[in-house]
Order: sequence, then C-alpha cells, then structure tokens
Amino acid sequence: MQQYRVNGERLWGTIIETAQFGGTPAGGVSRITLSDKDRQVRDWFVSQCTALGCTITIDEVGNIFARRAGKDNSRPPIAFGSHLDTQPAGGKFDGIAGVLAGLELLRTLEDNHFVTNAPLELIDWTNEEGSRFAPTMIASGAFAGIFTTEFAHASKDRQGLTFGEELERIGYLGKAKAGDHTLGAYFELHIEQGPILDAEHTTIGVVTGAQGQMWYDVTITGMQGHAGTTPMPLRRNPMLACARIIDGVNQIALNHPPSGLSTVGLVQVSPNSRNVIPGSVYFTIDMRHPDGVQLKAMHRELVTLLDHVTEETNTEVDFQHVLDMPPRQFDARCVEIVREAATGLGYSHRDIVSGPGHDALNVSWVAPAAMIFIPCEKGISHNEAESATPEDFEAGANVLLQSVLAYDAHL
Amino acid sequence: MQQYRVNGERLWGTIIETAQFGGTPAGGVSRITLSDKDRQVRDWFVSQCTALGCTITIDEVGNIFARRAGKDNSRPPIAFGSHLDTQPAGGKFDGIAGVLAGLELLRTLEDNHFVTNAPLELIDWTNEEGSRFAPTMIASGAFAGIFTTEFAHASKDRQGLTFGEELERIGYLGKAKAGDHTLGAYFELHIEQGPILDAEHTTIGVVTGAQGQMWYDVTITGMQGHAGTTPMPLRRNPMLACARIIDGVNQIALNHPPSGLSTVGLVQVSPNSRNVIPGSVYFTIDMRHPDGVQLKAMHRELVTLLDHVTEETNTEVDFQHVLDMPPRQFDARCVEIVREAATGLGYSHRDIVSGPGHDALNVSWVAPAAMIFIPCEKGISHNEAESATPEDFEAGANVLLQSVLAYDAHL
Repeated sequence: MQQYRVNGERLWGTIIETAQFGGTPAGGVSRITLSDKDRQVRDWFVSQCTALGCTITIDEVGNIFARRAGKDNSRPPIAFGSHLDTQPAGGKFDGIAGVLAGLELLRTLEDNHFVTNAPLELIDWTNEEGSRFAPTMIASGAFAGIFTTEFAHASKDRQGLTFGEELERIGYLGKAKAGDHTLGAYFELHIEQGPILDAEHTTIGVVTGAQGQMWYDVTITGMQGHAGTTPMPLRRNPMLACARIIDGVNQIALNHPPSGLSTVGLVQVSPNSRNVIPGSVYFTIDMRHPDGVQLKAMHRELVTLLDHVTEETNTEVDFQHVLDMPPRQFDARCVEIVREAATGLGYSHRDIVSGPGHDALNVSWVAPAAMIFIPCEKGISHNEAESATPEDFEAGANVLLQSVLAYDAHL
Repeated sequence: MQQYRVNGERLWGTIIETAQFGGTPAGGVSRITLSDKDRQVRDWFVSQCTALGCTITIDEVGNIFARRAGKDNSRPPIAFGSHLDTQPAGGKFDGIAGVLAGLELLRTLEDNHFVTNAPLELIDWTNEEGSRFAPTMIASGAFAGIFTTEFAHASKDRQGLTFGEELERIGYLGKAKAGDHTLGAYFELHIEQGPILDAEHTTIGVVTGAQGQMWYDVTITGMQGHAGTTPMPLRRNPMLACARIIDGVNQIALNHPPSGLSTVGLVQVSPNSRNVIPGSVYFTIDMRHPDGVQLKAMHRELVTLLDHVTEETNTEVDFQHVLDMPPRQFDARCVEIVREAATGLGYSHRDIVSGPGHDALNVSWVAPAAMIFIPCEKGISHNEAESATPEDFEAGANVLLQSVLAYDAHL
C-alpha cells in the first residue's frame, strides 16, 4: 500500500466552496441538472481539473471526463467520480462528495508527483437525480448503452424544455459519442443515504452491489357508499382492503430479514370524503431485497396477500408490476480492492448493499465497478439537512485513493 | 282510519315535472340551494300551493310555509315537508319527495273537501344539503333556534357570495322571523339514502330517531425515510400505523352489531411518494351508533386502539374530536302514529334509525316530530343514479297522509 493520504482539510474546503453553487438558506443545495447553478459548478469543476493538467472531454450527453495521463496511455483509464446535480431541496454531499473525493485524489497525486501506470479519469455524470429529466441516471445509462443519446436528448422537463436543448444552452453539449471509450475500472464514493453506517458507527461501507427492486401500482375497487347508512356486512370497502394490504406488505419484508424492505409510500383515495365509504383506492408498493430468490418469494407472497384480502373484503384488484429490477453484484475483484483498502487504512468497515440506484450500477455493465459508502447523519438524504463529518469524508477519500492505486499497481 | 288515499299517478307526475328544474343528461338533478334553478322550483311550489288556496309565508332564512286552514285556526299547524335543493350531482328524490308527498296530501284533502281540525303547513326548508353554504340544514336550524339568522345570512359560498345576498337575489328573503310560530307536530317523508329497506323489500321505514355520530381528525407522525435504505426495525412508519388503525376502526363497529358503523373515508399521506416512507398521515374517522352508551364505548375502544398502535409502531398521534353528536329520539307518539298508519294501510314496515341528518332532527327540538322512509334502489343517494319506485313513493305519501290525519283526529 502506498503511503499517500489525502488532505482532509483541503477536501472539506471544496465541500464548503461548492455548496455556494445553489446554496439554500437552510444550509442545503438546490442545483438541478442543467440549470445555471449546474453550469456554475461544472465550470468550477473543469477549471480545477484543468489547473491540475487534466484533459477535459465532454460527451454528447454532457458527461465530463477529466483525464490525467499515466505511464502507459494506451491502457484504458481507471475511472472514478459521481454527479454534481442535486435534488430540488438537496444536501451538500449527495453526488458531489464522490466528485470532490476524486478531485482530491488527483491533487494528492500531483502533490506527490506520482504517476500511475494507467491514465486516470475523473467523471461528472449528468442528471443522476432525475428530478428534472426522467429517468434518473440517464447519462451514465447512455454511456453504458442502456439508453440511446436520442432518447436522452428528447427527455422533457415540466416546462417542455428538452434535455438536449438545455445541455446546449448551458454549454455542455459535447462532441464525444456517449460510451466512445472503455474504462479499465470504475470506483464511486457516495454517502450511504441510509442509516446503517451511522447507527453502527462504521466508517466505510464496502458496497457489494445493489438490491433488487419491485414496484407495483395497485387499485382496489369496492362500492362507494354513505358512511352513515351502509351496514357493515353490506360494505365492500377498498380502504379496509388497502389497510390490510399495507400491514401485510410490511409483514412480507419482515418475513425476509434482515435485508427485506417493503413500503407503501403513496395512497390516493376516491372520493376522499369524511363521510363516504371510498369507491376505490390507488396505492403503490415498493419491495426490495439483495437476494433475487428471496425477492421473487416476496413477490409471490404479495400475490397471495392481494388474493386473500380482496376475497375477504369482497373487493376487486387491478395490479400492475411496473418495475422488476433484479439485484446487481459489483465486480468481485473491485469490491475486494475496496475492502482491502479500508482494512489497510485501519478504518472500521462492513459490506453493504446499496438501496438507491447509482451511476456505478450503470457503469458496471461496461466496466468492473465498485462503490465506497461513507456515513450520513441518521441516514437523512434528499434533504437540506443531509450531513456527513469531515473525518468520514477524509477516510472515504483515502479509501478511494488507495483502491485506485491498488488497482493500478496490479495492472 | 280515514279512507282517503293519495293519487299515485299524480304524485309521480310531480316528480317528473320537478326533475326538469336542474335536470341533468344523466337523469339526475343539479339544483343547488339559492341558485336560479332553486328559484324556479320554489316559484313552481308556491304557485301549486297557492292554487290549492294555501297562504304562503316566507321567513328571513327563505323557508317557505304553505298553510291550509283548519276548523280551528288558533291551533298550531300540523306540519310536514322537506327540502327542494339538491347536491351538485344529485337525484330526483332526495328532499323533494317529502315536499311533493306533502303537496299530494293537500291535493287529496282538497279533492275530498276534507278540512282538518288544526291548520296544516307544508314546508320547504332552505339549504338542507349544505353543499353550497355550510353548515347543512342551516334554515331548519335557524327555525329551531340552533343557529341565529345573522349566522345563516353570513355563510359564504366559494365565490364569496353570502347566503343572505343570494336569498335576496332570488327573491326569497322573507319578512317573517325564523321560528316565529309553533308547530303542533312535524312529519317528514324522505328516501332512506341507505340500503336496508331495499335489501329487505320493506316498503316503509318507521324512523325512530337518528344515530349518534362521532367525527375525529387524526394525524400520525413518524420518521420520513428512504424506502430503499431504511431497515425495517429502524422505521417509524405512520402509514403502517394508519393501516392498523383503519382495520381496528372497522373492528370497533363490528364489536357493536348490528347498528355500529365506522368509516375512514379520507386519507392524506405526506409526502405521498412511491419510494419514500411517509413522514405523516392525516385521516378522518366517522363512528356512529343509535345507542349513546355503545357509541361512548366505541369512543373508548378507539382511544385504546390509537394508544396501542402508535406504541407498537413508535409513532405519535394528534387526535381531534371534531364532532360529538349524541343519538336523538323522535317523539314517541309521533313515531307510533307513523307505525300505526303503515300497519293500517297494510304496508310492510320496520323501525329504522336514520343515518344521515334531516331537517326533522332540527325541528324535533321545538315540536314533536317523526319521519317516514321509503326505499331507494340499492341505497344509492347523493348521486344522479338515485332511484325510487312509484309504488313505494305512493305508499309513503299515504303513510304521511294517514299520520297527519291521525294526529289531527286525536287533537
């Protein structure tokens, strides 16, 4: 293991500095993709990388690649990065922490005049959040060949502006074809966006993959009626059915501990009036598990639950399976490199499975990839209150640095 | 029992005739209180009563009293009627059936040159529905001294127009003080607006009173979180708490059969997003029972349920008791008169407790009162599909006629 360590103070300074681009009075950041604030932080990012001697390439979906030359530039670059955009009311760490850790990695190598075997590439992926242009992670998806450039360019925001138009407006419609070059590997640092590391006082999450995810849209239909006149035995109450399904969905996750998750986050009642037995209730179900076999079992339990509850309440169900995303494993060697880096640096660490999606998941289809999680306070994210400590951030950046150097050393 | 019977064909004709005032393409009626359509049906009503020789009085809240002289006009009138306004998308029977049955009663006595001992009074109560001006039954309430005239006049619709202004605009701001005269008794025919009579093929509901009613506003607060990252044991999920309360509220009614009713009709989830564990859920509870002791027991069970569920889900509850209306019994003698009339006429009948409120409940505070229910198809009401049969309507009008005559005969 190289003796190099990042400069934690300098790293933390970049968090403070970049939080001004879209900073909110509540201490959060509102830097929606392809907005003027996004342009400002991109301009800052390009200037910092250029000052380090990096070559900047921008592709046709706005991804920014800052390349630092290696000893053998015929090799594919070892890449790292994340995203600079935020949620409309987001925090100072989600996304940009991974970019700034990468920048600090480059600065540390410059400080030490160290040149890697392969070239290095620090990447800002456009529109990870997806809060303005759907779907999320559209530009890393274009890089990985999951979406076409045309599909990305045509995505519209609520004002009818397209992704392509807005890319051009802010000056980041590049000429490079999306996915035009190979990455030797890809490492991404990110805040956990969940409470596990913080609750366990663990510094580093060695991300082994992402859990599988099932989304459902459910509509239960019964018989609308007067709350003051309809005897209980004559009721066909979709609200009661929905309630029992919510409780049952919760139980399904508990049947698959400790990693099973299930949530009903959205409920719409019709007609939604105090003294009217609802005629129908629409709601969504989100079920996740890192083990595909168990996730399928959860799906089967849900089907049984819906049958059972609608039968006992004499209601009818319309049931759409709107997302079926199997679990994804990161590259075993890259994961092991991250784990060894954390161990070598003496940081407490644990293997962890990502709950949310990340650009690294898209990249993992075209390059060996892994991720490094650092704790965020109480797991709060997508929120202006999002918080992480300088110590954890420095530790994560050191793990990123050592992972990249270790990968490079074994080429 | 007098041998007089109403003319069912003539009675049905008035349903067809009045359904034109606000008739909708779907066969319903939209005749919102104090609208031009309401004025049209009021004008029609006054002209029909005037043609029968009745004296018309309009009070300061727009109630219309059509008085037919008796042998002894020093006696307080025996009154009957209902309301001519409808829901925005209402039916042909709700309210007006009681007014038209009263009109047919007067016509039948005219046909037979029969004069009662006491004078008779057919009443149209303003704004029973309350869908434009809150609260419901505001004008029978003013007559009974429950609301002041000033309170009624100041009630505003969504456009900011007041009840008083609109009364004046349509020409029905009368000079008589609200509640200026005593009623000897009050009988009101109404469609059941519930499914019991229709389901049991019973012609007449002898309404013994109205059930008690409790309304609650409940907000459960937990901890908002990411559906993809928050482990089940760390969740404080208000949606799960709400679901268990909905199921428990349903069970509370089942604990008090056969008359207990309980309904959660309105649920609002915050932030209501597919992949977010809600931070809070607001919902309403409506519980009813004709027996005050049992209704209070239901209330206590609800308090226990809320405590239990919020404890097991680690959530917090804010709980407002927004309506506490004890059961109300109609006058025992008036109820018995209705029952005897139905028996004497040979109609199948049963005692029944009203689910919704009616003007007769307000009037019952200032005069002996009772109600007659007739079936409506499948209990559907407040709906353009509202339907009743000519046979049942004729039977109800005959019960009204015989009840009034019986009351008058025993003076």
